[in-house]
Amino acid sequence: GHLHNSEAFNYGVETWEAYKRGGLSKDLVEEQEKVQEADLLIFQFPLFWFSMPAILKGWMDRVLVQGFAYDLSKAYDGGLLQDKLSLFSFTTGGSKEKYAIRGDIRYLLWPMQHGIMHFCGVKVLEPHICYAPENVSEEKRKEMLTAWTQRLKTLWKEEPIDCSPEWYFK
Amino acid sequence: GHLHNSEAFNYGVETWEAYKRGGLSKDLVEEQEKVQEADLLIFQFPLFWFSMPAILKGWMDRVLVQGFAYDLSKAYDGGLLQDKLSLFSFTTGGSKEKYAIRGDIRYLLWPMQHGIMHFCGVKVLEPHICYAPENVSEEKRKEMLTAWTQRLKTLWKEEPIDCSPEWYFK
Repeated sequence: GHLHNSEAFNYGVETWEAYKRGGLSKDLVEEQEKVQEADLLIFQFPLFWFSMPAILKGWMDRVLVQGFAYDLSKAYDGGLLQDKLSLFSFTTGGSKEKYAIRGDIRYLLWPMQHGIMHFCGVKVLEPHICYAPENVSEEKRKEMLTAWTQRLKTLWKEEPIDCSPEWYFK
Repeated sequence: GHLHNSEAFNYGVETWEAYKRGGLSKDLVEEQEKVQEADLLIFQFPLFWFSMPAILKGWMDRVLVQGFAYDLSKAYDGGLLQDKLSLFSFTTGGSKEKYAIRGDIRYLLWPMQHGIMHFCGVKVLEPHICYAPENVSEEKRKEMLTAWTQRLKTLWKEEPIDCSPEWYFK
């Protein structure tokens, strides 16, 4: 559709205005409907460069627009996607030991769990991390899948984690 | 080109093998040549969700492949892109005060500065952050540009920052 302000283009303002007038593209509206209907969002991905692959980051950038996921002074505990849970489930290239050295694993969770989900008011379950599946035995890989299957069965009984800095940076 | 292993597709292995046999697509080779020639990499972007916009994350994902930017046991201080400097220069939506509350600004720098640049052996200069340019006066915006112009003049005299966890999480 047309730009809200064609004099000075502002991506955030344009998506916000497009959301309000129902002018977002169809694929985004469909994704937002999925989010709206979901009680739990599970993000499954291979960790790329301490973060999500660009295509998943693009989903966050494009789908979680102002007006839909947060609003002026409606962020964090006041975010618009309350009463939803989220879970980051990912595989890594490096071993658990490597990510433990500097506390990297906790630090890299902060932007995703706190900066995105918590900002939108979504509660966060303990992340599910499979370390270096490509470097372990087939048996170990099967164990990883079994453990994930088991966890999924009782996921609804889990309590959200504390999303305060203390959890990440203690 | 053809896949190195068409039985079990592994994105990391495929890009690594493609790099070694000169089989990466032309746009990636051109970006790698720019990186190779550069003494200093400045990444300028608006902060989206505590991180780079997806398109810039995609640049990291696609350009910094194994064999080019790092290799087996050649990472961090042994990374392949040594003797280069980098600088993350970005604008934010929120005010400096908001990012200071939980130490967010330091925490979100970790994946980019440590997890990507330091991993590749690239040294990191102090980030350049313009807080909430859209919410300040035109005069203040001009001051921001002047300050950046001034900093660029003496950038070569700056010392890289300490990329240890202590710098981020003290």
